[in-house]
Amino acid sequence: MSGIIEEQRRKPARIDLNCDLGESYGPYRIGQDEALMPYISSANIACGFHAGDAAVMRRTVRLCLEHGVAIGAHPGLPDLAGFGRRAMQISADEAYEMVVYQIGALIGFVKSEGGVLRHVKPHGALYNMAAVRLDLAEAIAEAVYKVDPELILYGLSGSQLTRAAANRGLRAAEEVFADRTYRSDGTLTPRTEPDAVWHDADSAAAQVIQMVSVGQVRTREGGMIGVKADTVCIHGDGPHAVAFAETIRRRLEGAGVRVSAP
Amino acid sequence: MSGIIEEQRRKPARIDLNCDLGESYGPYRIGQDEALMPYISSANIACGFHAGDAAVMRRTVRLCLEHGVAIGAHPGLPDLAGFGRRAMQISADEAYEMVVYQIGALIGFVKSEGGVLRHVKPHGALYNMAAVRLDLAEAIAEAVYKVDPELILYGLSGSQLTRAAANRGLRAAEEVFADRTYRSDGTLTPRTEPDAVWHDADSAAAQVIQMVSVGQVRTREGGMIGVKADTVCIHGDGPHAVAFAETIRRRLEGAGVRVSAP
Amino acid sequence: MSGIIEEQRRKPARIDLNCDLGESYGPYRIGQDEALMPYISSANIACGFHAGDAAVMRRTVRLCLEHGVAIGAHPGLPDLAGFGRRAMQISADEAYEMVVYQIGALIGFVKSEGGVLRHVKPHGALYNMAAVRLDLAEAIAEAVYKVDPELILYGLSGSQLTRAAANRGLRAAEEVFADRTYRSDGTLTPRTEPDAVWHDADSAAAQVIQMVSVGQVRTREGGMIGVKADTVCIHGDGPHAVAFAETIRRRLEGAGVRVSAP
Amino acid sequence: MSGIIEEQRRKPARIDLNCDLGESYGPYRIGQDEALMPYISSANIACGFHAGDAAVMRRTVRLCLEHGVAIGAHPGLPDLAGFGRRAMQISADEAYEMVVYQIGALIGFVKSEGGVLRHVKPHGALYNMAAVRLDLAEAIAEAVYKVDPELILYGLSGSQLTRAAANRGLRAAEEVFADRTYRSDGTLTPRTEPDAVWHDADSAAAQVIQMVSVGQVRTREGGMIGVKADTVCIHGDGPHAVAFAETIRRRLEGAGVRVSAP
Repeated sequence: MSGIIEEQRRKPARIDLNCDLGESYGPYRIGQDEALMPYISSANIACGFHAGDAAVMRRTVRLCLEHGVAIGAHPGLPDLAGFGRRAMQISADEAYEMVVYQIGALIGFVKSEGGVLRHVKPHGALYNMAAVRLDLAEAIAEAVYKVDPELILYGLSGSQLTRAAANRGLRAAEEVFADRTYRSDGTLTPRTEPDAVWHDADSAAAQVIQMVSVGQVRTREGGMIGVKADTVCIHGDGPHAVAFAETIRRRLEGAGVRVSAP
Repeated sequence: MSGIIEEQRRKPARIDLNCDLGESYGPYRIGQDEALMPYISSANIACGFHAGDAAVMRRTVRLCLEHGVAIGAHPGLPDLAGFGRRAMQISADEAYEMVVYQIGALIGFVKSEGGVLRHVKPHGALYNMAAVRLDLAEAIAEAVYKVDPELILYGLSGSQLTRAAANRGLRAAEEVFADRTYRSDGTLTPRTEPDAVWHDADSAAAQVIQMVSVGQVRTREGGMIGVKADTVCIHGDGPHAVAFAETIRRRLEGAGVRVSAP
Repeated sequence: MSGIIEEQRRKPARIDLNCDLGESYGPYRIGQDEALMPYISSANIACGFHAGDAAVMRRTVRLCLEHGVAIGAHPGLPDLAGFGRRAMQISADEAYEMVVYQIGALIGFVKSEGGVLRHVKPHGALYNMAAVRLDLAEAIAEAVYKVDPELILYGLSGSQLTRAAANRGLRAAEEVFADRTYRSDGTLTPRTEPDAVWHDADSAAAQVIQMVSVGQVRTREGGMIGVKADTVCIHGDGPHAVAFAETIRRRLEGAGVRVSAP
Repeated sequence: MSGIIEEQRRKPARIDLNCDLGESYGPYRIGQDEALMPYISSANIACGFHAGDAAVMRRTVRLCLEHGVAIGAHPGLPDLAGFGRRAMQISADEAYEMVVYQIGALIGFVKSEGGVLRHVKPHGALYNMAAVRLDLAEAIAEAVYKVDPELILYGLSGSQLTRAAANRGLRAAEEVFADRTYRSDGTLTPRTEPDAVWHDADSAAAQVIQMVSVGQVRTREGGMIGVKADTVCIHGDGPHAVAFAETIRRRLEGAGVRVSAP
């Protein structure tokens, strides 16, 4: 461990703050995309399956380009009514195909607006399924690689998805959560537990700083475990999302952590 | 006119045979995509709005690559139940956005399968609306140009769409129909008329050969009018689609017309 | 005219206040359904085509039953992204079928919650198309009649739709708008004009009271024209929707107009 | 057992032959609905979520009325591309709501065509999930009961679904399969096994006759187990579906078994 800490000390600490954006649809509005822009370094843009439509995608890509935020595709399950949060029993081929389709659709807007697609992060149930199902993880990594091997694949830190990405020859970004607590086995405390979430931005920021500077996180049981953190997920909905993001960003920079896309 | 005929004589006559493909969806099958492959030079692949799904798109792109058929996107209105054939009162912005989205989605598969996207041809009601509504024609041309200025835009010969393409700096392919008759004002005889359609492949082939070799077509009224023909639409459904395509191709080649994508 | 005014004076004035509700979808929220309940007498509930989903429909039916608000189906075009506001070139058969389907779906919830379906009001582009296209008006009236001849069909006052309803043997409710101005030919001033909308609830209420008590409305040109008003549409979205509804209701009752469903 | 057999002998054997119908969609055709009509006694009509659209539902209801076939709703998961065959992690509330919606939609057509809805049979993954998940089984039974307590709920013989139906006070129809083999624990041999399916209609018919006349089925292991059979599922797709249905019906009637809806 000390070798890693040593290495962390030598180079200035750096982290990416990512946020799921572009989740409005037709007449429906979700999120505070514009207000969050100054605080994040990368955006995961919904691609029309679980949320988002073509107009929203175009608008969100433009917003990212105006603010210098790295653009990523956020493919989800084809389930608008369920917001892509209901697991579906899909095959690896189906996962591959729905990811290629959605990345491609976003590439359309990135190209037409003169930008570059930088990463892919699966959404909701697809993200969770790919964290544990090896066949889905490999199919998604394959889809990303085949569309563009320069893309970075964001996945749950230590999951099947980031492992599959690395095995396929992709750059993976290990994702951690600012506002979720961890258990001693490295998994997130389920939301059904009372202490699953940090409700104050200061505790969340402190957790991120610790992850970034020493590569460790304090578990809810009180011990310390190693964790690899390349990118932090900032939630974009909820009444306090913008204030939360602003505090996280300010604390990180105050602690000498540089915020930038991978 | 004689100047054009002169020019036609100097260079060997050439025409593209295009067909709408990839129109199956989930468990549903339409078309005889594989059987048509040997006779066509370019394919317009449905992109999931009016027909087609991600699995069908992947399969159809592969089929085209195996047969050396040029790959095009075939964006349509978001109306699966109506097969994109019901006009919708969309804005120019909406047309732009749905075309960028759908071209992009197909680019995903073209890239992942190692091919190149060559053209775009709007489908059904979107094609018809863009033939006459200048704002839609310009929006579609803009969408295609912004995604990739090398793409060729297929549209009804002499329509607002091919004009808008040329004005935007795109290559346009003027599309004619093998099996439809023409009126003296250059428009197609409506399908409600008894003599709207050539039901035999020989008459259809003769019409195409005349269009290609002398740049003219005999109208239903008996006269001859000039017509610009870069590509011929071959219908892919119906019981006789394959035999029809085979005859057209054979006749064209027998008459010394080379069949190839633009 | 005097005979009608005479009749209006003999029986106490009465009007229905209707509102489009249940327009949320999956994770998306639109409208202030609960807050509007005390002020309206009938609700038009979206049925899943242009807005609404099964969970929202159930919740909205319950809300109506709790508040004694008359329940109506609000069928729309199959266009969630466009909120049913984009005209589509549908056939009379398609209109008939989509109306039967959507009324039926709502009947499912009305039956399962122990209520009664009272009326049908088409939504958005379907409403506008049915106001002027006789074949669609007749198809919708036929659909409503065939499902249940006791249902009341709401349509634009003086339109093809209410005429078709009466011709088919249905009760029609002539709908007027509280916050829209009228032209001397009886049509609404288009929203593109500066004086199309009453922005203050008092003027809107005054217009309704005049319509109800003397069967006339002052046009933007300054004259008076006759108008038949059985029900008034109250808009449920916008920041001032609830205050607007509350004022309209209070003013009407203050003027001795009874507010109740037809 | 002998008591049951005794009872079976006293009253003439009777069975229902049901088939999933109305699974076409927009321009897409599946099934041979019209050709199957003479051989079946009840139809499960898709309701627009996994297959079917409003036009298809209307046509199929009419077909049933013309042929005296009992009409049932066939609600499925909202997954047209997957034909409702992909399990989704839905809540009991979501199951309840999607079943109420879909039954209601079909009731629209049954009422408008002057018929009566007789039963409900969930489709595909919803059927399979409800066979084993008690909460879903109860939610579906509740939905059916609340819409109309006279409806019969079809479910896999011996499953949670038919049990939940009976517990709720509904009539249940225990469904068996003509062309599937059974294991000694009473479950169907999975389709991945080589002897999962009877490919000849004679064996299938013999199995049904045995189920109906003595309430037993021979297992693939060779023993006999009791099985309750109120209705037999006949598959409506595949090249031999009509011949299969015709043979089953003829054999049953030849063995003195009356074919009629429950």
